[in-house]
Amino acid sequence: MDVVICTAVVQDAWREALAEHLPEARIHIGADAPPSDYAVVWKPPAEFFARQPRLKALFSLGAGVDSLLAIPTLPRDVPLVRMEDAGMADQMVEYALYVALREFRRMPEYEAAQAAGRWAPRHARTRGGFTVGVLGLGVLGGEVARALSAFGFDVAGWSRAPKTIDGVHTEHGEAGLDAVLARSRVLLCFLPRTPHTERILDAARLARLPAGAAVVNLARGELIDDAALLEALDRGHVARAYLDVFAQEPLPADHRYWHHPGVHITPHVAALTDVAIASAQVADKIRRFEAGEAVGGIVDPGRGY
Amino acid sequence: MDVVICTAVVQDAWREALAEHLPEARIHIGADAPPSDYAVVWKPPAEFFARQPRLKALFSLGAGVDSLLAIPTLPRDVPLVRMEDAGMADQMVEYALYVALREFRRMPEYEAAQAAGRWAPRHARTRGGFTVGVLGLGVLGGEVARALSAFGFDVAGWSRAPKTIDGVHTEHGEAGLDAVLARSRVLLCFLPRTPHTERILDAARLARLPAGAAVVNLARGELIDDAALLEALDRGHVARAYLDVFAQEPLPADHRYWHHPGVHITPHVAALTDVAIASAQVADKIRRFEAGEAVGGIVDPGRGY
Repeated sequence: MDVVICTAVVQDAWREALAEHLPEARIHIGADAPPSDYAVVWKPPAEFFARQPRLKALFSLGAGVDSLLAIPTLPRDVPLVRMEDAGMADQMVEYALYVALREFRRMPEYEAAQAAGRWAPRHARTRGGFTVGVLGLGVLGGEVARALSAFGFDVAGWSRAPKTIDGVHTEHGEAGLDAVLARSRVLLCFLPRTPHTERILDAARLARLPAGAAVVNLARGELIDDAALLEALDRGHVARAYLDVFAQEPLPADHRYWHHPGVHITPHVAALTDVAIASAQVADKIRRFEAGEAVGGIVDPGRGY
Repeated sequence: MDVVICTAVVQDAWREALAEHLPEARIHIGADAPPSDYAVVWKPPAEFFARQPRLKALFSLGAGVDSLLAIPTLPRDVPLVRMEDAGMADQMVEYALYVALREFRRMPEYEAAQAAGRWAPRHARTRGGFTVGVLGLGVLGGEVARALSAFGFDVAGWSRAPKTIDGVHTEHGEAGLDAVLARSRVLLCFLPRTPHTERILDAARLARLPAGAAVVNLARGELIDDAALLEALDRGHVARAYLDVFAQEPLPADHRYWHHPGVHITPHVAALTDVAIASAQVADKIRRFEAGEAVGGIVDPGRGY
């Protein structure tokens, strides 16, 4: 069996880890590798697929496959498998809990008071009275919703299709989205990028958030209408935005987000794929393909995730 | 039965809550109330005790009783009972977890990168490789140590006397303190203020922390040698200090802490006593005193907590 790895980063770490889990495989590296049975890729060049005519399956190193689906040469008859968790859910929970606690405990208010030299204690709030909204209830969003609910926050979740999560108030569809937005003091985005979700957070939807809400995007930059978010931040209707992802990355040097006082930027690090966990997951799925067993995480190209 | 409440704040809320839990009691308010059986106090004037010759027990509204023990007229033969938790542990966990996540996920580094307009992703770390030190393993410190350990952080705890907490590496005594300090990327203080703990974090002990550590004080300002901490912050050996308590409160307007870039100030709000929970606790203990039963939280004046 031949496996080819084609990623811009950590190729050697992947080769080593995959060789350990699949000692029977010949492992190749890069865009000009010989035709292989399985490919593990992250943003491969378009010409990669011309040299891979006999792939049995294609593994994406990320949870989001939007950039892969946008490659015109992507073979449509080969199963595309996205990463499922691989250490990412834990990291998303860390980031989400950090922002939820920061907002819940009024840390931005205390930072502003300190900058003004003001000693200004505020009364305590209860977690159960503080609603965190979660858009997207897949592997990552679902795990975050569960963790925040277990910590005691009031959690409202939204997904395209109906979903049930213990301890989480869930909604779906257009009307359900408005209901979740209206309650969310902190709004967390975990939606996949599809034609349906691009700019889903536009001016009208941001206006439905309670005044002073915080918007957190750990998924894809394209989910947000940047001009509308900046306008809502300027007005103060959205108090803060915590952004890890952007329509263009690295975020261009002249983008207003860099220096807006209400914007907190991290450079697409909310959840990094753990090579050790991810390579074990890929090796397990390759064995399942070989044995003709069911494999999780296969992308529906029509749905886009 | 007569109960007197003497606090600077929320006296009416206390009267109402206590009346609900102890309908049989006559409840009085303020420093000039008639002699009573039980007193519930927070920073009463020294003359308060001259008018209360027949107290059976005295309840402190806070977990720390250092300011009460410093009152010369405090009757030494009346049991002094400190607040046990009363909603405070949950709030301490929130604050501690917020700072631990903030430091673990390098948020201060990303804030500095953003201010400089730099897109600079750093590699991920694992919680188990990140040590959080907890000084003081009483009701509050113990609960925080347990919660951080359950979340997956490596937790090292220290107390004066030996203590065991599942999942927490505990040390005690002078040598044990140095061992905990040497490993603590984030150091959380939950010690009571006593003659033994005043300025326990002096220049020598701060120097034992790993370079770039964060110091968090949610207990009493007097635990820290402020000049030594500022010097360690200026050198960068301590990267950040998160301070909720100060030797003088409100923190004086000309204190260097206010505008030091490494210092985060909150105005003694880390854990506020919840009147509903605390009044139920006091009422229960009054019933136990009346029934001659054992009561938890009685202060040992020699020990100071």
